[in-house]
Amino acid sequence: MSDQSLRQRIHEIIFEADTPAGKLFDVVLLGLITFSIIIVMLESSEDYNEQYGAFFWYTEWFLTIIFTIEYVLRLWVTIRPLQYALSFYGIVDVLAILPSYLTLVLPNAQYFLIIRILRLMRVFRIFKLGQYLSEGDQLRRALVASRNKIAVFLFSVTILVIIIGSLMYLIEGGGNEGFSSIPRAVYWAIVTITTVGYGDITPQTQIGQFLSAIVMILGYAIIAVPTGIVTNEIINTNKQSEVSTQVCRFCAREGHAADAIYCKYCGGRLNP
Amino acid sequence: MSDQSLRQRIHEIIFEADTPAGKLFDVVLLGLITFSIIIVMLESSEDYNEQYGAFFWYTEWFLTIIFTIEYVLRLWVTIRPLQYALSFYGIVDVLAILPSYLTLVLPNAQYFLIIRILRLMRVFRIFKLGQYLSEGDQLRRALVASRNKIAVFLFSVTILVIIIGSLMYLIEGGGNEGFSSIPRAVYWAIVTITTVGYGDITPQTQIGQFLSAIVMILGYAIIAVPTGIVTNEIINTNKQSEVSTQVCRFCAREGHAADAIYCKYCGGRLNP
Amino acid sequence: MSDQSLRQRIHEIIFEADTPAGKLFDVVLLGLITFSIIIVMLESSEDYNEQYGAFFWYTEWFLTIIFTIEYVLRLWVTIRPLQYALSFYGIVDVLAILPSYLTLVLPNAQYFLIIRILRLMRVFRIFKLGQYLSEGDQLRRALVASRNKIAVFLFSVTILVIIIGSLMYLIEGGGNEGFSSIPRAVYWAIVTITTVGYGDITPQTQIGQFLSAIVMILGYAIIAVPTGIVTNEIINTNKQSEVSTQVCRFCAREGHAADAIYCKYCGGRLNP
Amino acid sequence: MSDQSLRQRIHEIIFEADTPAGKLFDVVLLGLITFSIIIVMLESSEDYNEQYGAFFWYTEWFLTIIFTIEYVLRLWVTIRPLQYALSFYGIVDVLAILPSYLTLVLPNAQYFLIIRILRLMRVFRIFKLGQYLSEGDQLRRALVASRNKIAVFLFSVTILVIIIGSLMYLIEGGGNEGFSSIPRAVYWAIVTITTVGYGDITPQTQIGQFLSAIVMILGYAIIAVPTGIVTNEIINTNKQSEVSTQVCRFCAREGHAADAIYCKYCGGRLNP
Repeated sequence: MSDQSLRQRIHEIIFEADTPAGKLFDVVLLGLITFSIIIVMLESSEDYNEQYGAFFWYTEWFLTIIFTIEYVLRLWVTIRPLQYALSFYGIVDVLAILPSYLTLVLPNAQYFLIIRILRLMRVFRIFKLGQYLSEGDQLRRALVASRNKIAVFLFSVTILVIIIGSLMYLIEGGGNEGFSSIPRAVYWAIVTITTVGYGDITPQTQIGQFLSAIVMILGYAIIAVPTGIVTNEIINTNKQSEVSTQVCRFCAREGHAADAIYCKYCGGRLNP
Repeated sequence: MSDQSLRQRIHEIIFEADTPAGKLFDVVLLGLITFSIIIVMLESSEDYNEQYGAFFWYTEWFLTIIFTIEYVLRLWVTIRPLQYALSFYGIVDVLAILPSYLTLVLPNAQYFLIIRILRLMRVFRIFKLGQYLSEGDQLRRALVASRNKIAVFLFSVTILVIIIGSLMYLIEGGGNEGFSSIPRAVYWAIVTITTVGYGDITPQTQIGQFLSAIVMILGYAIIAVPTGIVTNEIINTNKQSEVSTQVCRFCAREGHAADAIYCKYCGGRLNP
Repeated sequence: MSDQSLRQRIHEIIFEADTPAGKLFDVVLLGLITFSIIIVMLESSEDYNEQYGAFFWYTEWFLTIIFTIEYVLRLWVTIRPLQYALSFYGIVDVLAILPSYLTLVLPNAQYFLIIRILRLMRVFRIFKLGQYLSEGDQLRRALVASRNKIAVFLFSVTILVIIIGSLMYLIEGGGNEGFSSIPRAVYWAIVTITTVGYGDITPQTQIGQFLSAIVMILGYAIIAVPTGIVTNEIINTNKQSEVSTQVCRFCAREGHAADAIYCKYCGGRLNP
Repeated sequence: MSDQSLRQRIHEIIFEADTPAGKLFDVVLLGLITFSIIIVMLESSEDYNEQYGAFFWYTEWFLTIIFTIEYVLRLWVTIRPLQYALSFYGIVDVLAILPSYLTLVLPNAQYFLIIRILRLMRVFRIFKLGQYLSEGDQLRRALVASRNKIAVFLFSVTILVIIIGSLMYLIEGGGNEGFSSIPRAVYWAIVTITTVGYGDITPQTQIGQFLSAIVMILGYAIIAVPTGIVTNEIINTNKQSEVSTQVCRFCAREGHAADAIYCKYCGGRLNP
C-alpha cells in the first residue's frame, strides 16, 4: 500500500463516519473521551483518589498517549495540516492533551483535561444527527439576533445591581457581616435579582428587608425581559423557515407557505 | 347468567364509565388509590408509624388484596389479556400491587407503592374530562415538537456546567469544603445556573464570588431559551387550529391561510 | 330634608365617586383602610406592641366603629340591602369588621383584620382607573382561557413531585434528617422544582445530589410550560382586540386593522 | 483665538465625539469614571482601605477636582447653561461630584459617588452604538406599553403576599423565630413567591410547609404572567417594524400590512 493511499485510508477512518471502520473509530473515540472525563472528575474526589490514585494516573497517561497519537495522525493525514491545527476542533484537540504534559512541571494541571468535553460535540456529526445541528443552529441564530438587546439589558442590570448593592451596603453595612463591602453587597444583589437566593448573605434590618423585597419584585418583573427577547427571536427565526422564499411569476408577491403550489394572492402557478 | 355475559358485564363495570355501576366502580377505585397513597406517605413518618403502625399495615394489605382481585378480574374479562398486561396501564396496575408482596422478602419495599399514583391518571377518562385530555395532548405535542431543540439545549448546558464546575473546583477547592471534588462543584453549578440556589455550597473567595455572579447572570439569560422554545411551539400548535376552515371548491383541500383569496394547491378562487 | 332624599344623598357619597363629597369620602376611606392595615402589621411585632400596645388597641376599635357605621349606612341606603350584603364587596366589608368583635371571645383574632386589604381593590373604581380595570380584565381572561391547560400541568407536576419525593426518601431517608418522611421529601421536591431552593433540606449523599441535579434541570425545562401557556393566551387575547370586527361590504373579508379605512383585499371603502 | 471660538472648540471636544480630540476626551472620561467607581468599591472593603486608604483618598479628590472642572466647562460652553444643568445628564454630573464635598461635613458620604456609574450611559452615544440605543428604545417602549398590566399585576401580588404572610404568621408565629411579626412573614412570602428562597426564614410546622408548597406552586404559575405580558409587548413592538415599507402612490401613507394589496387608507392599489 502506497503512503498516499494509506494516508487517504486513515483520513477516511479518522475524519469520516461513513465507512464501518470510520464509524467504529468515532464511537470508540467518544467512549474514551467520556471515560477520560469521568476519570478526571473522580480523581478530584479525595476519597476515590486515595484508593484508586495509581489506577487514575496510569489510565490518564494511557489515554493521553492514545489521544496524542490520534492528534499526530490527524495532522499527518490532513493535506493542509496548519488549517486543521488552527480550526476550532484542532485547538480543542491540542488543549485536550496538553494538560497531561503540563503536570510534569505543574501539579494539578490535569484538571484542565476537562476541556476534553468539548470534543464530545463531534457526536452530532458522527451519528448523523443533522437535524439536531440545524435545530442548534436555529437556536444559535435566535441568540445572535437578540445579542444587541441582551447586551443593552445586561448593561442596564449591571448598573442597577451596583447601585442597589451600594445602597444596601450603606443600610446594612454596619452590623451585618455579609454586607461588609460594596463588592460583596453587589454580589448579594446579583444573587437576589437573579432569584438564585443562596441565603449566605441576607438583610437583617427592617429597612434592609424592605428594600430587598422591592429588589425581588423588581427582579420578578425584569426576568421577563430576556425571556421576551429570546422568545420573540425564536418565533421570528422559526417563521422565516416556514415561509418559502418563492416569488410569484405573475404578481411577484412573496410569503407563500412552504407547501403552496399556487400564489395565494393572484392564483398564478408558482414555479415548482 | 352465562360466563360470557358475566365477563362482558364485569368488563363494562371495570373498564367503562358509562353505566352508573361502572362510574361508581371507578369513583370508589380512585378514592381507594388516593387513600392508599396517603397511607404510604403517612407510614413513612416515624411519629405516625409508631402510633398507627398496625393500622397502616392492615390497611395496606387490605388494599393490596382488593387491587390484586381487580387486576385478576381485568385480565380475566379482557379478550386479549396479554395486550392489556403489556399496555401502559396494565404495567402500572402490576407495579401498584407488586411492592406489597415484595415486603415479604424486602423490608421497606412498600414505599414503591407510591407508583399507584400513576393510576390516578385514569381520572380524566372517568369523568369525561375530554377537553382536559385534548389540552394535555396539545401540551404534549408542543413538548414533542420542541424535543430536539430541548435536547440540544440540555446537551450544551451539561457541557457548560461541567466546565464551570471544574473551574470553580480549581478556584475554591483548596479551602472550601463545599467544592471538595469536581462532581460536587458541578452539582453547585447546576444548583446555581437553574436559580435554585440552596446555599449549602457557596463560594467564599472573592474571585469565586465574581465567577458565580457571572454564572448567575448567564443562567438568567439562558433560562430564557427553553421558555422561548416551548412558547414558540405552543403558539405554533395553537395556530394550526387557527388556519381557516375553508375548503376549496375545485380541489377540496383545506389548510388555507386565513387571508388567502386563491387556493394554494390548485389556484381556484376560494369562496369569498 | 326628607328621609328619602337623605338616603339618596348618602348613597351618592358612599357608593359613587363623581361628586366632590363622594370622592373625598372614598379617599378618606382608602386612607383609613391603609392606616388600619399598617396598625395590624405593626401590632404583630412584639417590640412595637410593647411600646404602643394601648395606642394600637384604641386605634383599632376606633377604626372598627367607623367601619361598622359605614357598613350599616351602606345597608341602609341600598334599595336591596341583601343583594349588597351578599355581593363580593358586601362580604369583604363584613369580614373587615368582624375580627375586632371576635377578639372579645377569641384573643389574636385581630390579625384576620388583614382581610381589610381586599377593600383596597375599590381604588380602581374611585380614581377612574378604568383602563387598569380593562387591563386587569384582559389578564383575567387570559388566565381563564388557559385554566384547563394550567390544571393539567399542575396535576402532572403533583404526580411528579410525589414520585420524586418518594424516591429521594428511599435514597436519603436513612441518615438525612431533612428527608425523614415522604411528605417532607415531597415538600423538598416542590421547593426544588419551583427553583425556590430554601436550602433547609438538602441532599447529602452523592446519588441524592445526582438525582437532585436531574430534578433541577427538569424543573428548568418545565418552568417553561406555564410561561408558554400564559404567553400564548395573552397574545391571543391581545390580538382579538387589535383587529377590528368590520366586514368589507364588497368582498366580505374581515381582519382589517383597527385604523383601516379601505378593505385591504378588494379596495372597497369600509363602513365608517 | 477669540473667546467665542474657544468656547465653540471646547464644546466640540466635550459634547461631541466626531473629532479625534472629542473622541479622545470621551474615552479618557469613561476610563476615569470606571476607575473612580472601582476606587469607591474597593474603599468600602476594610482590608483594602487599611492598606491603601491614603491612596484612595488622594485619588478620589483628584478625580473629583477633574470632574468639577469638566462640569464648570460644560456649563461655560453651553449656550443655555440652565437647560443643561436641569437635563438628566446635567443632574447626574452634579450628583457625581457632590458627595466628595459632602464628606467635609458628613463622613461616609463618599459612597454616594457610586451614582457616577450613571455617567457611563454616555458610552452608547460616544461609540456611535446607535443600534444599541434603538434596541434599548424598543425594549423601553415594550416596557412602557406593558406598564398598566404590570402595575395591576404588582398590585394584586402585593395584596396576595400580605394575606399569605398574615396567614403564615398565624400558623408559624408561635414557635418559629422567623415569623415573629406580620411584616417579617410578608417578607418571607415575597422571598418565596419570587422563587428567591434565601432560606433564612423557613416554615417548621407541617401545616406551614403544606401552605408554603401551595404558595410556591402558585408562584410558579404567576411568574408566567409578567413574562407573558412583556413577551407580548416585545412581539408587538417588533411587529410594528415588520410592517411593509410600501408607500401608497395615491395618498402617500405608510404602515400597510405586509400582505396588503390595496391601500387601507384611500383604497388605491399598492405597487405590486
